Formats: sequence, structure tokens, C-alpha cells
Amino acid sequence: MGRVVAAMSMSLDGFVADEYDGVAELFGWYQNGEVEVPGADPRWVFHVTPASEGYLRPALTSAGALICGRRLFENTDGWGGRHPAGCPVFVVSHSVPGGWPREDSETSFYTDPIAALEAAQKTAGERVVSVSTPTLTQQYLDAGLLDEITVSLVPVLLGTGTSFFGDQVVAPIRLSDPRVIEGRGVTHLTYRVLR
Amino acid sequence: MGRVVAAMSMSLDGFVADEYDGVAELFGWYQNGEVEVPGADPRWVFHVTPASEGYLRPALTSAGALICGRRLFENTDGWGGRHPAGCPVFVVSHSVPGGWPREDSETSFYTDPIAALEAAQKTAGERVVSVSTPTLTQQYLDAGLLDEITVSLVPVLLGTGTSFFGDQVVAPIRLSDPRVIEGRGVTHLTYRVLR
Repeated sequence: MGRVVAAMSMSLDGFVADEYDGVAELFGWYQNGEVEVPGADPRWVFHVTPASEGYLRPALTSAGALICGRRLFENTDGWGGRHPAGCPVFVVSHSVPGGWPREDSETSFYTDPIAALEAAQKTAGERVVSVSTPTLTQQYLDAGLLDEITVSLVPVLLGTGTSFFGDQVVAPIRLSDPRVIEGRGVTHLTYRVLR
Repeated sequence: MGRVVAAMSMSLDGFVADEYDGVAELFGWYQNGEVEVPGADPRWVFHVTPASEGYLRPALTSAGALICGRRLFENTDGWGGRHPAGCPVFVVSHSVPGGWPREDSETSFYTDPIAALEAAQKTAGERVVSVSTPTLTQQYLDAGLLDEITVSLVPVLLGTGTSFFGDQVVAPIRLSDPRVIEGRGVTHLTYRVLR
């Protein structure tokens, strides 16, 4: 099976969104460079440094499924039905939002995070299952189901907001030394979860 | 005046000590290499990788004063009267602990963190003032008095403990891209605080 990878942009003090769910301070690196990296849909075009391209392009093309929580799904309006990585999206939610599922979108809904992961892995096959929500990352970490963590570490202190790792209960969890890519306004750190 | 630098070993989830004030998971890199780096006192000898030497040796030799809080001072037993960096120590504490100050130790006590910093800067001259306590780091950050942050980022998730940046109130605080040194069991990231 493909790897299960959690990837988020995070402030140096551990937040993946500010207290109003804003990500402007964290997502600058997606548009601060000269290399154009297209998403799966023409609506999504990134402009990154050559260094960040070395992280972003493989991340976008390797994903075979993406798992997210309801809040991210709502905040992005379901990515308009098509995620930048172009892969099917598995949303963990207590209920199915109005208007969904849609025939024109490979988006499905699960109440159980583990069932969502199993379905995503089946769809992804040998490709990566990308986890894009902190609470799910923590649950999969606690359950020993996460293979890799990429932190795109942004040089800012937000003081408060949504924590990437705040609700984890199993500890310590040891990681490998990271693969490091030094971008502009971001340092991409990719760790393997050790078991 | 010399730079005011906060330097701590921190887990990927933002903790500088576990819930019992333990640092075993975070300080492994001080003794996991083949290069001997002596502290100012023969009791302190570090064995680090060549990469970490590139961070540690200058950090030890550049410090002209060190500021810490009462808890770290107690936990290290006042470093036996002499800090590994060999510089005078300025302790911020509501009261002076029994047995202190000692004639054989350049350790002084202040109730006011800003007064402690001023005294440390006067002593350090052009040398670095090193801040070694999270709450003081946060206060100096909030007051705009911190020049640099070095995070020795350790690949572990502790889940809970003492947060490096937890009580900061002024935000966002933007930083430069870091100088990166990739060690073994640690990634040293040095940021300038932007104003």
C-alpha cells in the first residue's frame, strides 16, 4: 500500500491556521517564486521558488487520495469539487453537507476516520494518501497508521490558532531525521514516523 | 550591544521539556557524536556530530551572559555555580534561593526580567546574551528585545510539556528564513526576529 502522509504548513510555534482559521501568514510560499506549478485544475496555479518546487511538484503528483475534516472542506468550499492534487477526496464528517455528494466530483463522506482511511488507501493503491487535517493526523498517529509527516515550517510566530499536534495522546512518538528543503519563507521538513 | 539570543532544544510539537520537566528526549544530540566539545568547566563535555559542532561550539564560546528563570536554575542546581558556557548567569526570580549568591559563582538574581536583561547586556558588552527559559523568551519577544531565536528541532512528538512559545501575547511576529544545520537527531534552525 502507498504511504500515509500528513502535510501541513505550520508556524514555528506549531499552528496551521490563525485563530480565525486564516492561513495568509502560512501560505505565502505558494506564491512567492518564479516557477509555475499547475494544479490538477486550471483554477490552481502556484508560483514557487525552485527549492519549493522540489517539494510541491512531487507532493501534488504523488497523491492518490486526500483525507480531510469537515472544517477544511467547508473553508475551501470543497475545493470547488476538485482538489489541486486532482485526486479523490475523503471527508470525515458527522453528516454529509447539503448539496453533496455531487456527480461531478470524486468526493465521499465518512463518519469514521479509520473507515475513511481504509477507503482512501483502497483508492490510492500504491500512491500516497495525503492527510490534510490536524485532528485526523493526530488520530492516525495515535493509531500507528501514519507513515510520514511533512511540515512546511514558516518563519512566523502566530501566538494562537489551530495547533498541528495539539490533541495527540500517545507520546512520545519518535521520528527520523528530516529531509530538508530550504525554500523562501518556508523550510520543508519531511519526517518518517518510527515504530 | 551584543545580540539577545533565545536558544532551546524543542520537539516538533513545540515542547522544550516533557510534563515532568524531563529533557532526555530532547538532549540526545549533545552526546550522540564523535566530536568532543568541552564546556567551560571540566564537568561539562559534549560529544556531537561534526554538523552539530558547527552550531554548539560558537554558541558556547560567544555567550557573554546567560539569563534564565528560577525553575531552570533549580533543576540544574545552578549548574553547580558555573554554566557550561562559562559566562555570568542572571536569574529572574521572585526571591533569592537559600545559599545564594555565592562568592565563587558569577550568578546574580533579579525580580524584574527587563532589569535582568539590562544587567546581562552591560556585562556581555559586544558578546551574546543567551536566554534559556521559555517564559523569558516570550516576554522579551513581546517587548521587542529579542534579536535571534535558535531552535534545535528534535524529531519527536512529546504530546505535552513545557511549550517554548506558549504564552506569547504579541502576534504575529515574523522571522527571517533560518540558517539550517542538519545534525543527527536534531536540526538547528537560527532565525532573526524581524521588526
